[in-house]
Amino acid sequence: MKKTYLLTPGPTPIPDSVLSALGKQVVHHRTPAFQSIFEEVKNGLKYIYQTRQDVLVLSCSGTGAMEAAVSNILQQNDKIITINAGKFGERWTKITKAYKLNPVEIKVELGEAPSVNKLEEIIKSNTDAKAILFQASETSTGVRLPTKEICKAAKAAGMLSICDAITACGVFDLPMDEWDIDVLISGSQKALMIPPGLASISLSEKAWVASEHCDIPHFYFDLPKERKLQAKNQTAWTPAISLLIGLQESLRIIKEEGLHSVFKRHELLARATRNAVQSIGLELFAQESPSPAVTAVKVPSSIKEGKKLPTLMRDKYGVTIAGGQDELEGKIIRLSHIGYCDKFDITTAIASLELALNELGHKTEYGKGVGAALQTFAEG
Amino acid sequence: MKKTYLLTPGPTPIPDSVLSALGKQVVHHRTPAFQSIFEEVKNGLKYIYQTRQDVLVLSCSGTGAMEAAVSNILQQNDKIITINAGKFGERWTKITKAYKLNPVEIKVELGEAPSVNKLEEIIKSNTDAKAILFQASETSTGVRLPTKEICKAAKAAGMLSICDAITACGVFDLPMDEWDIDVLISGSQKALMIPPGLASISLSEKAWVASEHCDIPHFYFDLPKERKLQAKNQTAWTPAISLLIGLQESLRIIKEEGLHSVFKRHELLARATRNAVQSIGLELFAQESPSPAVTAVKVPSSIKEGKKLPTLMRDKYGVTIAGGQDELEGKIIRLSHIGYCDKFDITTAIASLELALNELGHKTEYGKGVGAALQTFAEG
Repeated sequence: MKKTYLLTPGPTPIPDSVLSALGKQVVHHRTPAFQSIFEEVKNGLKYIYQTRQDVLVLSCSGTGAMEAAVSNILQQNDKIITINAGKFGERWTKITKAYKLNPVEIKVELGEAPSVNKLEEIIKSNTDAKAILFQASETSTGVRLPTKEICKAAKAAGMLSICDAITACGVFDLPMDEWDIDVLISGSQKALMIPPGLASISLSEKAWVASEHCDIPHFYFDLPKERKLQAKNQTAWTPAISLLIGLQESLRIIKEEGLHSVFKRHELLARATRNAVQSIGLELFAQESPSPAVTAVKVPSSIKEGKKLPTLMRDKYGVTIAGGQDELEGKIIRLSHIGYCDKFDITTAIASLELALNELGHKTEYGKGVGAALQTFAEG
Repeated sequence: MKKTYLLTPGPTPIPDSVLSALGKQVVHHRTPAFQSIFEEVKNGLKYIYQTRQDVLVLSCSGTGAMEAAVSNILQQNDKIITINAGKFGERWTKITKAYKLNPVEIKVELGEAPSVNKLEEIIKSNTDAKAILFQASETSTGVRLPTKEICKAAKAAGMLSICDAITACGVFDLPMDEWDIDVLISGSQKALMIPPGLASISLSEKAWVASEHCDIPHFYFDLPKERKLQAKNQTAWTPAISLLIGLQESLRIIKEEGLHSVFKRHELLARATRNAVQSIGLELFAQESPSPAVTAVKVPSSIKEGKKLPTLMRDKYGVTIAGGQDELEGKIIRLSHIGYCDKFDITTAIASLELALNELGHKTEYGKGVGAALQTFAEG
């Protein structure tokens, strides 16, 4: 008998009542029963996005919604700025290149966030760029980016701000309307606590106006068409119905806890995780601007084969966390605290980390990390 | 208390054991546990497609896979033939136009299939077309198209055959390799008996060679990238994991029944449905070439507001069937017998149809339609 625990930055664990909803017979997507579910989902997403705009649901992964933003709002040969603070920032560059835009890529040292001063400077010296594309939270490095400041500077320069908040929306505060975020994107398997397969996207009035001049061919991802149909609680194509039924339930859970309580919980869990790993001599990978979504931690140099650490935690102790990707493989581990996650998920993760570290030769005092997490919780 | 029944051509009902699988916690998509599920799903899909080629899974609706075929295999300005025998054939024309191809659209009278002679003639007089795009079963009219003959003629003319089999694959025999189908596409919410949100696509060697010359921009739908990764039981982007876990179970069910037994069941259910509706004086909409997936039936002229018939069946009797779409709205009803459907689903559908017809003023002898279905079953 081995219980399993999921602490990866997507997919995230699913609450029981959502699992029950996911295991229901589906309803047909052109019936009043579906329309009533869709109506509730739409309103729930507007609550999460903190917007008066429509939030559109797409049946795809988050990457599909990133593509939809590019292929529906921008134009070929547009100059745009992409912030590459890791794998997902790099994806903006790849998507925009695939669609023949001209990205000016701002590459940031891995584990760091670009400073507000640097960003303002970049925006000021590229005022001919039509948009700036970035992540609110760069999942590959555990870094939080200064979304509010980026959007403010972009607005002042007459530029669109396009924010991938796939692992950020519903994790920490990103009030779309208040911060003038022109395009906000999320995915289903993060703070929304359902399996992957749905993404969502919302556009400001300015972004909708830009979309009228779009010359990039697209068909499946057709935001104006979705806007028109979703206003009537329909979708352009057959949607992932069971995921929408699950989302209806998970949005109810979020609403009951209250969005700002959810944010506070994520902040506390992240702080406890950071305190725990530091108390046992580990170093944070994102020092200056750690994300409340995921804590990236350097594998100690005493462990030569860094990949073994998350594998041992998963295979021996049943605790699945994420390792590093691409050039960070074997160099960092990533502990997520997104969504259906509470205090004892963190202590479990830290407990299994303590066991695995000692087993791989990095000696720590058992319980010290867990103790630091508990201390953080006790202080609130 | 009102029980509900789903007899629409997608979504289709989901078996209990599949519902249980759908309601499980997801596993992370970069773990051995996921890879073992994916390996089994891949092999199950090859069995359904009857191919030695890779069958790729995409997280989207069937329309996404149709787009993927166009944007990964063809080139801008390519001349291609589309067979428009209804709403889904028309979709091929729309997608190819969106990507700046030159479709020669062959429009067929609604409810009819193009004759093999006519098709051969069209193909012979358009040998400069690179591909012919069509449906194996046109769901909007309930017509089955002559896939084998189309692919044979296309091959002889050096043309690629691209077949949307979203409501056909796993319903009736479409042996991809034996019939030289170059591209075969399916969806999850039809014969595969899981909710919508996944599509699949397989390419012949000839289609893969063509894809090397593709000049259409694309990113989310990247078939060569998916081919490379899915060979290692990974996917390009986070997949709809819970649907894959459900698909593993539904493919087991299909394998246990045996693919050709599944085909025979669909044939029998379709025949019983046709006999039942004709026995109570209704007329088939697809006379010459009815599909074993869905039976389209003309609303009798005595019922002036045709839309009322499926609405009454759904709202009063809990039986959801499909009406006609677009210009066929109010003119036909469509009874599906795809997937998790057996004899008493058909008798239930016919029974509720008899009640609703009489209620709307089209008098029939109660039980006559059900009797004709039972007679068909008794004869096997």
